[in-house]
Amino acid sequence: MAQICRVDVDSGEIKYEAVPETWERLGGRALGARILLDEVPPLCDPLGRHNKLIFAPGTVVGHMVSSCDRISVCGKSPLTGGVKEANAGGTTGLKLVWLGLHALIIEGRPGDPETSSVLYLSQDEARLEPADDLAGLGIYASAERLLDRFGDDVGIAMIGPAGEMQMTAAGVVHLDKDRVPGRISARGGLGALMGSKGLKAIVIDDAGASMPPLVDKELFNDARKRYIKAIQEHPQTSEIYTDYGTAAMVAMCNAKSGIPTRNFSAGRFEHAEEISGEMLHDLIAQRGGEGEHAHACMPGCTIRCSNVFADGDGETIVSPIEYETIGLLGSNLGIDSLDTIGELNVVINDLGLDTIEIGAVLGVVAEAGFMEWGDGERAAELLEEIRQDTMLGRALGGGAGLAGKVLGVERVPVAKNQAISAYDPRAIKGTGVTYATSPQGADHTCGLTIRSDVDQTQPEGQADVSKDAQIKMAGYDSLGICLMGGFAFGQDLTMVRDMVNGRYGWGVGDDYLLEVGRQALRLEREFNRRAGFTTADDRLPEWMTEEPLPPLDTVFDVPAEDLDTIFDDV
Amino acid sequence: MAQICRVDVDSGEIKYEAVPETWERLGGRALGARILLDEVPPLCDPLGRHNKLIFAPGTVVGHMVSSCDRISVCGKSPLTGGVKEANAGGTTGLKLVWLGLHALIIEGRPGDPETSSVLYLSQDEARLEPADDLAGLGIYASAERLLDRFGDDVGIAMIGPAGEMQMTAAGVVHLDKDRVPGRISARGGLGALMGSKGLKAIVIDDAGASMPPLVDKELFNDARKRYIKAIQEHPQTSEIYTDYGTAAMVAMCNAKSGIPTRNFSAGRFEHAEEISGEMLHDLIAQRGGEGEHAHACMPGCTIRCSNVFADGDGETIVSPIEYETIGLLGSNLGIDSLDTIGELNVVINDLGLDTIEIGAVLGVVAEAGFMEWGDGERAAELLEEIRQDTMLGRALGGGAGLAGKVLGVERVPVAKNQAISAYDPRAIKGTGVTYATSPQGADHTCGLTIRSDVDQTQPEGQADVSKDAQIKMAGYDSLGICLMGGFAFGQDLTMVRDMVNGRYGWGVGDDYLLEVGRQALRLEREFNRRAGFTTADDRLPEWMTEEPLPPLDTVFDVPAEDLDTIFDDV
Repeated sequence: MAQICRVDVDSGEIKYEAVPETWERLGGRALGARILLDEVPPLCDPLGRHNKLIFAPGTVVGHMVSSCDRISVCGKSPLTGGVKEANAGGTTGLKLVWLGLHALIIEGRPGDPETSSVLYLSQDEARLEPADDLAGLGIYASAERLLDRFGDDVGIAMIGPAGEMQMTAAGVVHLDKDRVPGRISARGGLGALMGSKGLKAIVIDDAGASMPPLVDKELFNDARKRYIKAIQEHPQTSEIYTDYGTAAMVAMCNAKSGIPTRNFSAGRFEHAEEISGEMLHDLIAQRGGEGEHAHACMPGCTIRCSNVFADGDGETIVSPIEYETIGLLGSNLGIDSLDTIGELNVVINDLGLDTIEIGAVLGVVAEAGFMEWGDGERAAELLEEIRQDTMLGRALGGGAGLAGKVLGVERVPVAKNQAISAYDPRAIKGTGVTYATSPQGADHTCGLTIRSDVDQTQPEGQADVSKDAQIKMAGYDSLGICLMGGFAFGQDLTMVRDMVNGRYGWGVGDDYLLEVGRQALRLEREFNRRAGFTTADDRLPEWMTEEPLPPLDTVFDVPAEDLDTIFDDV
Repeated sequence: MAQICRVDVDSGEIKYEAVPETWERLGGRALGARILLDEVPPLCDPLGRHNKLIFAPGTVVGHMVSSCDRISVCGKSPLTGGVKEANAGGTTGLKLVWLGLHALIIEGRPGDPETSSVLYLSQDEARLEPADDLAGLGIYASAERLLDRFGDDVGIAMIGPAGEMQMTAAGVVHLDKDRVPGRISARGGLGALMGSKGLKAIVIDDAGASMPPLVDKELFNDARKRYIKAIQEHPQTSEIYTDYGTAAMVAMCNAKSGIPTRNFSAGRFEHAEEISGEMLHDLIAQRGGEGEHAHACMPGCTIRCSNVFADGDGETIVSPIEYETIGLLGSNLGIDSLDTIGELNVVINDLGLDTIEIGAVLGVVAEAGFMEWGDGERAAELLEEIRQDTMLGRALGGGAGLAGKVLGVERVPVAKNQAISAYDPRAIKGTGVTYATSPQGADHTCGLTIRSDVDQTQPEGQADVSKDAQIKMAGYDSLGICLMGGFAFGQDLTMVRDMVNGRYGWGVGDDYLLEVGRQALRLEREFNRRAGFTTADDRLPEWMTEEPLPPLDTVFDVPAEDLDTIFDDV
C-alpha cells in the first residue's frame, strides 16, 4: 500500500501515514490541489509556516511507460498567491513511486531561517541532515556533490541559490535519467517555497525498491502497446519532436506571428531562423561531441524531445534548450544566437530559476532602458546581480510582475502575476484564454491551443478550445503524463482508461482523463476562490487588449463574458 | 450652479458640465467613489488611460469654517488597486469651490509620455500649458516657480519627481495658507496617477471669485458658532493639539506600547521622549525664528495643530512634522532625533512622497540588512537613489509591499498593499480592524480608535468601535471636515445637520453625517468588489497575527468573522 510521507522541518519529525480515502484515487496535479484544500489555509503567507510543499507523482507513474512518469510539485504559489502545480520529467516521480509514496508533504518552517538541509528517503530510512556545505551552491555543483555523497543511482529534487534566497521566480530542479539537473518544476516560485522550508535537496534512493504492482498486467501492457504505436505513428513525434524538440515551435510561432519579440512588442522576429529548431538540430549535428538532438529526459521515453546542446568543441553548454526558453531569452530580448541563449539558460538553471519568468523579466528591464535589445552580456551581468543577492538582483529574481512594478513598465506580460510564455495571446488567442483563466496563472502547458482547429486570430470559439485543452492538460498533469505523450493519448481515450484499470482495477470509463481533468480544475478553482481570487484575476493585462501586435495588428479581444463563463459546466 | 470641470489630457480639451443629479448631494470622498463607479472600469490599469484623477471638495467646503475646507483627491489607487481617496488641508478645496467647481476630473493619457503640463484654472479661463521647465523639479522649487509665474494668491496642487516617475508611494501636494507646499494627499499613490496624466501641477486662481451662497445664513452661522465653541472647549484642542500638534501622540502611543519601533518589532521606543510632542514644542520655543508650534494649515482654523519646525538658527527645516512621520521615520527606524526626522521629512516632501509609506519602506530595508537602525545618513542616501531614478530607488519608491517583495522580508506592515501607520494593530486593535477592513487599505485616518472606550489590547468589541469610527470618518471625509474638527462635531451631530441645511437647504436630519459615511463606504466597497476585492483582502499580514508585540506580547487576534461581517449592516 502506498503511503503519505510527512516531513515537519521545524520538529524534524518524519511520519509515514496511510493514504486518506479521499486522496487514494487522485494523483499529481489533482492530488496537490486536494491536499492544499484539505490542509493549507488559503490566505496563508506562501513563504510562511502554514504553506506546504507537496510532491505528488501522477496516477500512472512507476512503469517507465514513455512520457508517463512525471512528478507534480505543488503548494500555494509564492508568485501568484494561488494554487500551484509545476510538473517535470526526470526521475523524481518514478523513484518516489518505487519507494511506495503516494505523496511527500513538507510542512512547518525551520526555527533557524539559515537552516539548509537535505531530506534523504530510502526504503529503510528517512532522515533530515544538515547541508550547510551546499548552501548557496549552484544547481550543477550541488548535484555533483549530492551524487558523490549518495551514489549515482539516486534521484534528486533540489533548489538553487535563487530558491534559497526565496526569490519567487525560483523553481525545483530534478535530475534527468542521465543525472543532469535540467528538468525543472519551474513555474510559480515553488523553489522559493522549498527554500522557505530550509530544504536544499531531496535525495530519493530507490535501491532495492521495485515497480508498483499491476492488477491486470495484460490490460496494462496492451494499452501501453497501443499507446507506443500511436506515438510512433504520430507525425508530431517522428517528424518534429524527435528531430527538433520543442524548438520546432520557433518556426511555427514565427509564422503565426506569435513569437514574443522585444518584450512582446512584435510577434515576428527577423532572426527567427538563427534560433530555430532546424538551426539547433544542425548545430548539434555539426558540432558532434556531447551534443544530442534526440534525448530522453525520463527512462523509457520514445519521443525524446529533449536535447543536449554543445559548443564548438563538442562540450555541453546546456541540456535541454526548450522552445519557451528560446522565445523568452532569444526573440523576446532581441538575441539571435543560440549560443548566447544557451549560455544564459545554463546560468538561469544553475541559479534554479524559471527561464520563462526570467526571460520576461529581462524583457521588462530592456523595455525600461536598463539593457539594450540583443545585449547578452548585459543580461549575464544582471543574472550575476541575482547570484550576488544584491537589492537589484532581488528585484529581478521576483519575476516579471515585480520587475514591472519596480521599473514602472506598463508592457508587462503576466497573468495572475506569472509570466506569459512564448505564444503571444494576441496571435494565438485560445492560449490567451488559457493564460487568463487557468487557476495556475499564465502557463502554456495548462492548455496550449496552437494546433486547435480554429482561426487563432479571431476571438470567436477560443474559450471552447481553451477549455478543452485545459481539461485535458489538467487530466494529463494529474496522471503524470507528459504533454508530448498527450498527442498520442488524445487520439483514443481508451488507452488511458485501460492503463489505469490495468494498474489499479478501478473500472474507470472512457472519459476518465476528462473526469480527472475537470475534477482537478474544480479543486484548483475552489482553492483560489478561498484565497480571494475572482473573475477580476482571469484577465490579461490591459495593454494586450489595446496594443495591436505587429504584423498581424490584432489585440486580445476574447470577450470578458467568454472568460467568465469558461468553467461554468466544468 | 456648481459645475464639473473635465480635462482630457490626451486631446487637451477642457469642458464644463452640469453636475449630474446623482452627484449633486455628494462631496469629497463619497463623490470620488461615485465618480469612480460611474466612469472608471474597475479592472483598469491604474496608470493607464482609463483611470481618472478626481479632485472633489467636501460638501461644506467654501466658508473658511475652522477645519472644514478639505480637498479629496480620488482615483483607482496605483498602490492598492482599489478605490482611493486622500484628503488634505491647505487651500486647494477652498479655491476650487470658489471657482464654482463641484469636482475636477482629469482623464485620458497624453500621447507623449514625456509630457509635463500645468493646468491653469481661473474664473475666466481654463488651459493646459507646457511645464517642461518644471519636469523633475522638487516640490519646493516647483512651488516657488509656479508662484512666481501665477502670482502669490493662487492655490496649487502638484506632484514631485516621484509622482512624475509614477512611483506608487507618491502623493499630491497642496499649498497651505502660507503658500508652503506641505499638505499632502499622501496615501495610495495618487501622485503616480497624476504623473501618468502628464500633469505636474494644477494652479487654481480664484481672483475675483467669491464665497458660495448660503441658503439660510442664520442657521449656518449659528451652527458654526456652536461648533467653534465646541472646538475651543474640547480638551484635546486647547490642551493638546494647539500646543503639541499630532506629535502629542508619541507619548500616548508609546505609553500604550503601540508606537512602531524598528519595523514594528516592538511597540515601545526607548528614546520616545526625544522625539515627542513635548520635545518638539520645546525645541520650537527655544529656537525661535521661523518656528511656530500652533500653525493653521487652512484659513480660519482655530485648532492650529500644524507646526513649523526650525533649526538652531531659527530657519525652517520643514512644516509640518506630524506624528505619523515621527513614528515611521523615527522610532520605526530607530532614529531618536527630531532634526534627523525633519531633514528626512523635507526630502520626502520635496520628492512628493508619502512619509508613512516611505518610513515603512526604510524599516523593511533595515530589516533586510541594507541599512542600520538609527542611520539617518543611510536613509538620506536611499532617498537620493529615489531622486536619481535608479533601479534601486524605484524599488523603494513603490512602497513597503513592493520593497518587502523585492527584499524577501516577511515582516512587512501593509494591508491592501498600503503601509500601516504609526499605531501598531496588536496594541490598538480597533485601528487594526480599520487597517484590515477599510476599502482604502491601511489608513489610520479611516477610523482611528485609540480613544475608544474599549480595552485596546483585547479582541472583543474592536469591530464595533472600528465600524463606528470608519462611518464617521467616511462622513467627515465626504463633507470636507478635518479629523481634528471631528472631535467637536462628533459631540453633537446637529451642528453638521444645520451647517448643511444652512448652506443647501436640503433638510437633512440629525444622522446626516452617519448617512453620508455609510453611503461612502457602500460605494467604495462596491467599487472594490468590482475590482476583484474579497474578504481575503480584509486581513492584516499573517505575522501580525502570530508574532507577539513586545512589551505587551499581544498579537492581532480579532476573529476573521468580525472582520468579514463588520459592514453587514452598513
